Amino acid sequence: SRSINLAVIPGDGIGQEVVAEGLKVLSAVLPQDVKLETKEFDFGARRYHATGETLTDADLDALKRHDAILLGAIGDPSVPSGVLERGFLLKLRFAFDHHVNLRPSKLLPGVATPLAGQPEIDFVVVREGTEGPYTGNGGTIRKGTEHEVATEVSVNTAYGVERVVRDAFVRAQARPRKKLTLVHKNNVLTFAGHLWTNIFNKVAAEFPEVTTDYIHVDAATIYLVTDPGRFDVIVTDNLFGDIITDLAAAVSGGIGVAASGNINPGREFPSMFEPVHGSAPDIAGQGKADPTATVLSVALLLRHLGYDAEADRIDAAVTADLTERAGKPARSTSEIGDALAVRVAG
Amino acid sequence: SRSINLAVIPGDGIGQEVVAEGLKVLSAVLPQDVKLETKEFDFGARRYHATGETLTDADLDALKRHDAILLGAIGDPSVPSGVLERGFLLKLRFAFDHHVNLRPSKLLPGVATPLAGQPEIDFVVVREGTEGPYTGNGGTIRKGTEHEVATEVSVNTAYGVERVVRDAFVRAQARPRKKLTLVHKNNVLTFAGHLWTNIFNKVAAEFPEVTTDYIHVDAATIYLVTDPGRFDVIVTDNLFGDIITDLAAAVSGGIGVAASGNINPGREFPSMFEPVHGSAPDIAGQGKADPTATVLSVALLLRHLGYDAEADRIDAAVTADLTERAGKPARSTSEIGDALAVRVAG
Ligand SMILES: CC(C)[C@H](C(=O)O)[C@@H](O)C(=O)O
Ligand SMILES: CC(C)[C@H](C(=O)O)[C@@H](O)C(=O)O
Repeated sequence: SRSINLAVIPGDGIGQEVVAEGLKVLSAVLPQDVKLETKEFDFGARRYHATGETLTDADLDALKRHDAILLGAIGDPSVPSGVLERGFLLKLRFAFDHHVNLRPSKLLPGVATPLAGQPEIDFVVVREGTEGPYTGNGGTIRKGTEHEVATEVSVNTAYGVERVVRDAFVRAQARPRKKLTLVHKNNVLTFAGHLWTNIFNKVAAEFPEVTTDYIHVDAATIYLVTDPGRFDVIVTDNLFGDIITDLAAAVSGGIGVAASGNINPGREFPSMFEPVHGSAPDIAGQGKADPTATVLSVALLLRHLGYDAEADRIDAAVTADLTERAGKPARSTSEIGDALAVRVAG
Repeated sequence: SRSINLAVIPGDGIGQEVVAEGLKVLSAVLPQDVKLETKEFDFGARRYHATGETLTDADLDALKRHDAILLGAIGDPSVPSGVLERGFLLKLRFAFDHHVNLRPSKLLPGVATPLAGQPEIDFVVVREGTEGPYTGNGGTIRKGTEHEVATEVSVNTAYGVERVVRDAFVRAQARPRKKLTLVHKNNVLTFAGHLWTNIFNKVAAEFPEVTTDYIHVDAATIYLVTDPGRFDVIVTDNLFGDIITDLAAAVSGGIGVAASGNINPGREFPSMFEPVHGSAPDIAGQGKADPTATVLSVALLLRHLGYDAEADRIDAAVTADLTERAGKPARSTSEIGDALAVRVAG
């Protein structure tokens, strides 16, 4: 008999509320013969304030014994900027080698977009997750003086770039349009730019059916608002991916519906799935958060574990729910979760 | 009697066409007693192909003897990516210490925007121009092998950050809303992020009338499409500024109307003014390019040199022209230039 051994990290703010709905939908969609075991972890601001810990070696060991991780959101204004980001979120991505950061963007019918004319949007960003300016390389000298110098080093390796570029080509090959766009800034960041561009072109030769192009990151932001339909799959660096996926979420229905996966494709470590949004302390505890992004992250999780039919059922339920939602009064977090649970079970 | 000694760099593609209109409007707006002297320089792809040169020491000496520089656009697909960018554009910004890269965004009535609901947009981005990941620091080892490592180093100094932050506060103080937003990624790029944030907070204490806030660069792209009216003045790093100003241009009427100044506020070196758009080789020589961004760059140039009334006349002429343009058949590059020249003279 099959089983899913899931680590659950509700985290801070609305993280608690949206994860509860994600689990509700997950339980509803799984066939009877799949045994779901969940273990909750208390990472985030409260644990940090209580113990000073963000993520210990023992925590990593405990997390490692799971098939996947579902995360709500981590972050609170009471914690200095960077502490939980570097000490928990990024530490986990690096420790578990989550080098494929997958962020799909699809504008569903009836869903509000800030763009005029309700354009067609259906693309996936494959963001590198373990290199670039996110490595924590760099430092500060003469801190706090008028002679302070602070550096940030973007580290890019052939090994790291090739594996994520290859992953993106495989994903592009599997999609109807079979198109892959490299987003970088190779005219200014020429060292990293050459590495990315050369590897992209080399791997492209192995995928003759995939159409490719290249766009500078600054120009990519223009296309994302003037012609988002031109994108099918995008592969890009860690920082550029961070920036353009927030913009992508904004134009394709908002961060209330943007899902993401921090994936270790070889499954040496559990992959982690989380909504793109943060902990939104301003609306926490009020039942106002939209759990849809978390529910869609559960679909990515299921797909990663091989439960494609169940993932499809969630996607279809969300599409139906969003389409019907248009123009109706707002529902609470749990009302949306309940509606989705009913749909996926039915 | 007064005089302006202007270096003119038409450059590549549509650069030639738009600069001609910029000069037309400049001549028309200047009072009789101001002597305008222009010297044209042939930088760009043709010079590079003919001589292998992008910008020599002798070129810099020659440019230095001018009050300001007007640039069309530099870049052509026949030149490898990075050669003209690093060898001309960035070399010039660094050589002439253009540390304030000024990019205003204003959505004028009747001008098309990809955003629904024609929001109010009127802000200025003050982008740092001589530091960050643009310094060319970094390198490559084991190039072309599977063990290649490429680094890009973002260099940030208290000296460099403080002068641009101070410039932004002065600009915010002079605007009706008096609001300044720092855009960075201080939760991940913690070394540079702390430097920027500390200096921003320190200088803020000297400007009690200016309201301040902080937004991560990824979130800033969301606000630029969902609530651009929240911004008044933005100060940011070189790379983040590159990215968000392209997006800002896209939402506020397109790169056809986006102007920029590469400014050396102390006037030790001539400042350079240029449209944000590139050389657009696909439409070059066809009279299709919109010269408005170049004409608005001329207005920034005049303001920098102290010709405020003339700059105001250009801004007013452009506003009137854009408002009337809505819904009418497209005019050629020179027709638009002629119309603006008539308006500023009248
Ligand atoms: C919170 C932060 C560390 C994170 C990132 O920059 O990757 C977030 O913005 C994201 O996109 O997941
Ligand atoms: C062409 C390139 C070097 C330049 C930059 O990155 O600064 C351009 O994108 C700009 O914004 O002026």
